[in-house]
Amino acid sequence: MAYELWYWPGLPGRGEFVRVALEAAGQPYADKGCEEGAEALIQDLQGRSGIRPFAPPYLVDSDMAEGGGTLVVGQVAHIVTYLGHKHGFAGDTFLVQLQLTQLQLDISDMVAEVHATHHPLANSLYYDDQKEAAARRAQEFRAERIPKFLDHFEAALGATDGPFVAGAGWTHVDTSLFQLLEGLDYAFPQRMAAVRNKYPALQRMRDAVAQLPGVAAYLASGRRQAFNEDGIFRHYPELDAAE
Amino acid sequence: MAYELWYWPGLPGRGEFVRVALEAAGQPYADKGCEEGAEALIQDLQGRSGIRPFAPPYLVDSDMAEGGGTLVVGQVAHIVTYLGHKHGFAGDTFLVQLQLTQLQLDISDMVAEVHATHHPLANSLYYDDQKEAAARRAQEFRAERIPKFLDHFEAALGATDGPFVAGAGWTHVDTSLFQLLEGLDYAFPQRMAAVRNKYPALQRMRDAVAQLPGVAAYLASGRRQAFNEDGIFRHYPELDAAE
Repeated sequence: MAYELWYWPGLPGRGEFVRVALEAAGQPYADKGCEEGAEALIQDLQGRSGIRPFAPPYLVDSDMAEGGGTLVVGQVAHIVTYLGHKHGFAGDTFLVQLQLTQLQLDISDMVAEVHATHHPLANSLYYDDQKEAAARRAQEFRAERIPKFLDHFEAALGATDGPFVAGAGWTHVDTSLFQLLEGLDYAFPQRMAAVRNKYPALQRMRDAVAQLPGVAAYLASGRRQAFNEDGIFRHYPELDAAE
Repeated sequence: MAYELWYWPGLPGRGEFVRVALEAAGQPYADKGCEEGAEALIQDLQGRSGIRPFAPPYLVDSDMAEGGGTLVVGQVAHIVTYLGHKHGFAGDTFLVQLQLTQLQLDISDMVAEVHATHHPLANSLYYDDQKEAAARRAQEFRAERIPKFLDHFEAALGATDGPFVAGAGWTHVDTSLFQLLEGLDYAFPQRMAAVRNKYPALQRMRDAVAQLPGVAAYLASGRRQAFNEDGIFRHYPELDAAE
């Protein structure tokens, strides 16, 4: 199998952005962290030398091995743009490719801000030990950051006739926006219900991604992991509100 | 002039990563935010349509105009890799190019964590209104995140004979690491003094970047803005310690 995906088992997290892109593209992959466990993941990552991924997820592409080595790509935005360029879902022109990479990095920024809503003080503390700070951080995220980011993505979708950000053909930005919206709905259901009607282009794109044959099959397969309170997108009712 | 850089005036911030790369490459640019002010920057950004930058800095490249339009690139990591590919400082092989982009995104992550040390709760609050949370966040950043990131970059530099991350020729990762280390020294002088000796390859790379003709001329020019307490890298003595 060409691709090995290494990510923490037991949570969709950042790895799910890579999975959705691979499933949409119909590219098989071994989900190594899920198959072999967290200890194997840590050993695999620590056993790599030189310029290695800072953290999971990372993708090993044995198709692109050079000189007996293997190609390893880390950072979610980088992985999905790499896959997009290789398999033709990164945009048709140089200008569009640049814009899509830029949007993908904007998505990464929003994902990092989602994580900060439940871990504002320290990654090494439990949520229960930073709940008060999390409540303050989540308040700004709901009131200011969700509208600012979603307005931005809605405007990007408005640059074409849709349903996707580059027009009729899906790209890595669409699969990532799909997963981002899924996660936001899980983590902040009241807030997302309150703003959903402001974003018709995002909703249309999301529906269109869900209907891509590869994604529809994945969603129906039972292989997709449910969100939970170990991942990036966590539902803590006290962090959600309509405003 | 081919390049216009748009960034907030009065602080080096994220814009400085782009400036150092342009200066190293000997590419002239108009520093529009500094020349025209924050209001002009906001108007310029809001006046752009379709897929536009989420936030400053962004680079306008009139060399690459298509159909009467202009090419606009946002996101620091994306801007400097774009410039690197165009001007030959993004690595010589496909594999190295991928690894450098990945490292550049790791640098972006560390820069975001630096910002979080003084703004853990909300971007819209003043530092003085989140000092207690900032102290907790900075404690973890100093103790755990600085070693984790710098170990990672030191190991990356160890993959070649140096002085740069890809060997004898400088890349966008080197100019960004240079600026990152400059900022860390400003913000956390006690902590950086305590760990500096652990990172000889980083120190050698940093010295080599400072001696690149374009960078040396920039540092001597008086044009480089000093760090201050409006930017990403801020020196608040209460957030620094040797441990």
